[in-house]
Amino acid sequence: MAPSTAEKQEHSDKERASHILRLPLDATRVDREPHSYERWMVAKLMRMAGSPPICFRLWNGDVIPPESGEARFTLYLADPKALYSLVANPNLAFGDLYSAGRLQVEGDLAELLETLYRSVHAARQKWPRWLDTLWRNHNPRATGIPEAKENIQHHYDLGNAFYQLWLDHAEMQYTCAYYEQPDLSLEQAQLAKLEHVCRKLRLKPGMTVVEAGCGWGGLARYMARQYGVRVHSYNISREQLAYARERAREQGLDHLITYVEDDYRNIEGQYDAFVSVGMLEHVGKDNYAALSELIKRCLNPEGIALLHSIGRNRPMLMNAWIEKRIFPGAYPPSIGEFMGICEHGDFSVLDVENLRLHYAQTLTHWMARFTENEDKVTDMYDAHFTRAWRMYLAGSIAAFRAGSLQLFQVVFTHGDNNLLPQNRGDLYTTPAAPGEA
Amino acid sequence: MAPSTAEKQEHSDKERASHILRLPLDATRVDREPHSYERWMVAKLMRMAGSPPICFRLWNGDVIPPESGEARFTLYLADPKALYSLVANPNLAFGDLYSAGRLQVEGDLAELLETLYRSVHAARQKWPRWLDTLWRNHNPRATGIPEAKENIQHHYDLGNAFYQLWLDHAEMQYTCAYYEQPDLSLEQAQLAKLEHVCRKLRLKPGMTVVEAGCGWGGLARYMARQYGVRVHSYNISREQLAYARERAREQGLDHLITYVEDDYRNIEGQYDAFVSVGMLEHVGKDNYAALSELIKRCLNPEGIALLHSIGRNRPMLMNAWIEKRIFPGAYPPSIGEFMGICEHGDFSVLDVENLRLHYAQTLTHWMARFTENEDKVTDMYDAHFTRAWRMYLAGSIAAFRAGSLQLFQVVFTHGDNNLLPQNRGDLYTTPAAPGEA
Repeated sequence: MAPSTAEKQEHSDKERASHILRLPLDATRVDREPHSYERWMVAKLMRMAGSPPICFRLWNGDVIPPESGEARFTLYLADPKALYSLVANPNLAFGDLYSAGRLQVEGDLAELLETLYRSVHAARQKWPRWLDTLWRNHNPRATGIPEAKENIQHHYDLGNAFYQLWLDHAEMQYTCAYYEQPDLSLEQAQLAKLEHVCRKLRLKPGMTVVEAGCGWGGLARYMARQYGVRVHSYNISREQLAYARERAREQGLDHLITYVEDDYRNIEGQYDAFVSVGMLEHVGKDNYAALSELIKRCLNPEGIALLHSIGRNRPMLMNAWIEKRIFPGAYPPSIGEFMGICEHGDFSVLDVENLRLHYAQTLTHWMARFTENEDKVTDMYDAHFTRAWRMYLAGSIAAFRAGSLQLFQVVFTHGDNNLLPQNRGDLYTTPAAPGEA
Repeated sequence: MAPSTAEKQEHSDKERASHILRLPLDATRVDREPHSYERWMVAKLMRMAGSPPICFRLWNGDVIPPESGEARFTLYLADPKALYSLVANPNLAFGDLYSAGRLQVEGDLAELLETLYRSVHAARQKWPRWLDTLWRNHNPRATGIPEAKENIQHHYDLGNAFYQLWLDHAEMQYTCAYYEQPDLSLEQAQLAKLEHVCRKLRLKPGMTVVEAGCGWGGLARYMARQYGVRVHSYNISREQLAYARERAREQGLDHLITYVEDDYRNIEGQYDAFVSVGMLEHVGKDNYAALSELIKRCLNPEGIALLHSIGRNRPMLMNAWIEKRIFPGAYPPSIGEFMGICEHGDFSVLDVENLRLHYAQTLTHWMARFTENEDKVTDMYDAHFTRAWRMYLAGSIAAFRAGSLQLFQVVFTHGDNNLLPQNRGDLYTTPAAPGEA
């Protein structure tokens, strides 16, 4: 009997996930004594990482304590080769070994990573240049039109069922929420984010909006439903678009929304607003000038543009493991590079807001739901996949908490537009978040 | 009889003003017929400026209409040499000729300049590179410690009595006000600006603040009075400091405020907040890295920094006339260059707000008061000085309206500071402006 469509889909999801995430080397448990130079390597590695409060437990049970003070976390290394990979390229190997089960963490994973990021951030100022070069992310993926399609499908086409396990149930938002109040639920905070974005765009009924990268289409539906605007939303993830269109039909919003399966570079027409939430990370530096020219072209003279993206305090390559295993081709711009997009188009930047800790909180909510559903995830894919995603979510919490990543919302207009809001008070007159449902 | 101190002061103010602002060439009225190539030069000049709706009236009464459409403004040129200066270096000569009375404007000066700036901004994309080079601002003044002192004294030590004629009567603010509501008075809007800045710094009683460039000390007094913080304020303008200290004594705030006559580069100590309103324009690009390192050094780990400065949408030299005659050494950074200051210090940018049109409105208020007091200004200095300042104020209104200048308020913290405000709603809970006095 031929497998059903759903079964086929699940099979191909599994293949995609395991093809990309699995390490070529299998874990090979050994229990020989560690050599003295292996102990030296561990100590040296920890010194390069700024001597964080971490101890190592080696494959034979030997424990190497931190250089000073008490250990708050323990890293278990299952075999000598794991140690060698870690020394050769810690950025890449840490995630790979964790996913393979050959590096295990005792203690809270996100807290360990935050401690490590803070420690490494301070210590790397003193690294010799060759070490920085050796350990940096080599050969990140390109982001031309065909590569972008692969990059995006690698991640976003893992299956809607998977993302539904841990994203919010309101609008399937896979971007930073807005915790207007610290105790909001994930659903409330995601709706507050959508509302906050709409307010920044100063939407009015009848306006036209173009959206670059629409995920599962939640923002487009929110804008159409709450503000009565007409939206063109572009995306190259087929799975997401199928979901988006179905929801818009169900909600009777399809006369206001056109979901377009195409690259953002093919956007045509002119609109009262340009919005992109969580796509810029995938655009790549080489394409910033073209993106700027695109916005220039398709924004009405009095239109407002908003870009919402993960960013950095200063230019830095994407973490190698995230870029290779999770988000191929991803690059979060520094705030200066981000402003370069605006400068290129001679735009006037009206408003920049940094929601860094909101993303840490969003990810904490995602992680809690993911953790509850780990068994299901393992059933859908396998244990390797589950560990990789646990590492990715925990690492992201840590990166936003430690300040290695930022979340910028940038609002800008054409440089000669004088129809500007008097101030930003209108964003704050009523709560952006709905009451608890 | 020896002149009194006040007379001496007035005399030296006059000398300073006339020394720097007067053109070497005197106006030499002629009434000969213009040559045909002189008419050609006018037409060519207007074409390079994008054919704005301006007609020229020449020294003999001949009128040259705009290339197309009706003229909204008339420029009167008093002599042929005025035309040659204008062609050779319009950026510099326009202001110089206007100040000398050899170029006169029929129609609203600020509106003419706005029209011209918008027209030139569009037209210059098509200029040959040599023209841009020829007309650019050559040899702007340096901004090292000794030059900075001269630059600042040139402008800010013109005499407090002069600035009191047209600045607000509340706190002598010579920076962009905050028109929270469009109908605020200048005084209300300046107090609202001070309040808005304090809210962005999240000041609490007992905190310590360092201020780089304090003008007449109004922000320091506002912070001490309204928020009970201790302030160290640096300035190198002696006239401003004398005024600032006297006011602080009168108001019984001198136990909370130390006004320091020194360059910002000599700031010492660590503070809960770093603030600079309207000084960055004078710092100069070469000193941005040092400024960043200074803030890094003197901001407490949980401190907040705020820089408020005129800026640009993209890097561009300061207008030659403003830089040479009004603000020697001035350079407004592009938003990207501004962010470069934050990147250099590994700071996290929390908030950028652009108050461009607020500066146009502030300047419109200043210009109205200046216009009412022109006779007094001419008595204090001379007619040349009065025309130069009229040109400077009108040109600034035009630059902010046309979008050639921006006003950025940028808030940032150390990159690893997690004690951040939940959102920006606290800036908007109550009006920042006081009720009408």
